[in-house]
Amino acid sequence: MKKQELVQRIRSKRSFLCVGLDPDVSRIPERFSGDVLAFNRWIIDQTRDLCVAYKPNTAFYEALGLEGTRILKQTIAYIGNNHLIIADAKRGDIGNTSRYYARFAFDTLGADAITVAPYMGADSVQPFLEEAGKWTILLALTSNSGSSDFQHALQGDTGQPLYERVMRTAMEWGSTDNLMFVCGATRAERFGDLRRIAPDHFFLVPGIGAQGGDLAAVCTFGLNDECGLLVNSSRGILYAEDPRRAALDLQRQMDEALKNYAPKVFE
Amino acid sequence: MKKQELVQRIRSKRSFLCVGLDPDVSRIPERFSGDVLAFNRWIIDQTRDLCVAYKPNTAFYEALGLEGTRILKQTIAYIGNNHLIIADAKRGDIGNTSRYYARFAFDTLGADAITVAPYMGADSVQPFLEEAGKWTILLALTSNSGSSDFQHALQGDTGQPLYERVMRTAMEWGSTDNLMFVCGATRAERFGDLRRIAPDHFFLVPGIGAQGGDLAAVCTFGLNDECGLLVNSSRGILYAEDPRRAALDLQRQMDEALKNYAPKVFE
Repeated sequence: MKKQELVQRIRSKRSFLCVGLDPDVSRIPERFSGDVLAFNRWIIDQTRDLCVAYKPNTAFYEALGLEGTRILKQTIAYIGNNHLIIADAKRGDIGNTSRYYARFAFDTLGADAITVAPYMGADSVQPFLEEAGKWTILLALTSNSGSSDFQHALQGDTGQPLYERVMRTAMEWGSTDNLMFVCGATRAERFGDLRRIAPDHFFLVPGIGAQGGDLAAVCTFGLNDECGLLVNSSRGILYAEDPRRAALDLQRQMDEALKNYAPKVFE
Repeated sequence: MKKQELVQRIRSKRSFLCVGLDPDVSRIPERFSGDVLAFNRWIIDQTRDLCVAYKPNTAFYEALGLEGTRILKQTIAYIGNNHLIIADAKRGDIGNTSRYYARFAFDTLGADAITVAPYMGADSVQPFLEEAGKWTILLALTSNSGSSDFQHALQGDTGQPLYERVMRTAMEWGSTDNLMFVCGATRAERFGDLRRIAPDHFFLVPGIGAQGGDLAAVCTFGLNDECGLLVNSSRGILYAEDPRRAALDLQRQMDEALKNYAPKVFE
């Protein structure tokens, strides 16, 4: 899915919601009897018109054992072609090996995008960027507590934090048409800084809801003229008493934020 | 497999060889008709007495499609319990998600160890370290060209490279009994430095052979009194005209290096 298509969907749905499809067998409603695919289909049916992206995290499917990949592939097939589908896999390996991960995410699973870890540098990321029409979403500033261990460390030559080095370096590898960054909502105070570093790139924003991130703050500093944000909610929707209601609440907040902070999206 | 058991096997086999089981369907001998499991079994049979570890890289199995996980699990089962089995997966995610990856590697696949990426920090690594009797092998200084993009960057507060920060920080999370580091052989000139940072930890060393790493230099600076090295060869063995001969050549060089640089291993 090209950027213009993504922005068009955001405009028409008045939403930049991404639904995280991270099914935890111990938490899905009893009536599904542990049938993860049926649960996913139900969540997708409840949210399809309210979101522009779905993000299954591969760990939750690996946890299902040998059948996990099949369930993930069937889930992705059920979503269809009208949403951006992000394989949240956080992969990265030496060049020829990253190419295999890319083939798995894009060809075997049918995803449009994959999250990638930056530690191994250029040749570990390039194979993902080289896939025509696909997106690489690179970890920059993550939403977890451990993000402070290395990502915030100031670099000797520039005085910038590591996440800034990662973003500035990667912006030389990819463009706003094939590269996004993961920027956690739990670091909302950093969004002005993140947007200054990468004014035109899309950010995938986890950490709203269960992890405590502040949607309003993220929107105030993070929105740009093409929206530029995909805000993810996983547990906050999947295990809500009424998942559709939870998604609708977020979509309405997003509609409001777009009108207030990114009116050019509608021009 | 506990550290003492690993050292005992190194001592008796006079080898610290790890065989990388990264089957590329386009390169395996024709007589296997693309049967990856049969090829893996043949390689294992050719090398079992010459190596102390096997390291399948999960990307090569994901590339096999929906059957890949089953083939990987069957490969691991065929190896049995007398080798350290490393799932080279380079995973890492927020805490509860890393736990799923740990379960997959250790329970579903049956591996003894997993490679983990450090970028997300403590809570992304801890779930792997918490698995009793298992090993976490953290990326420190990798063997690929992209390792210079971020891993060598000097940190503002300490003046040390990022890989040193990663190692020193992680040594507070784990011990020499559950934490190893990936240190690429293509950076052999750094091995003195790496050994100074972590005198007692095992290093998993990729990059010998196809990637151009220098085994002698790695041994000179990397061996310690418990050996402390697992040196991996993948393509150099798998696609050799005679895989057993290729493994035997490495084992003999390792025997020599142990006698010269780590005689205490035999005490």
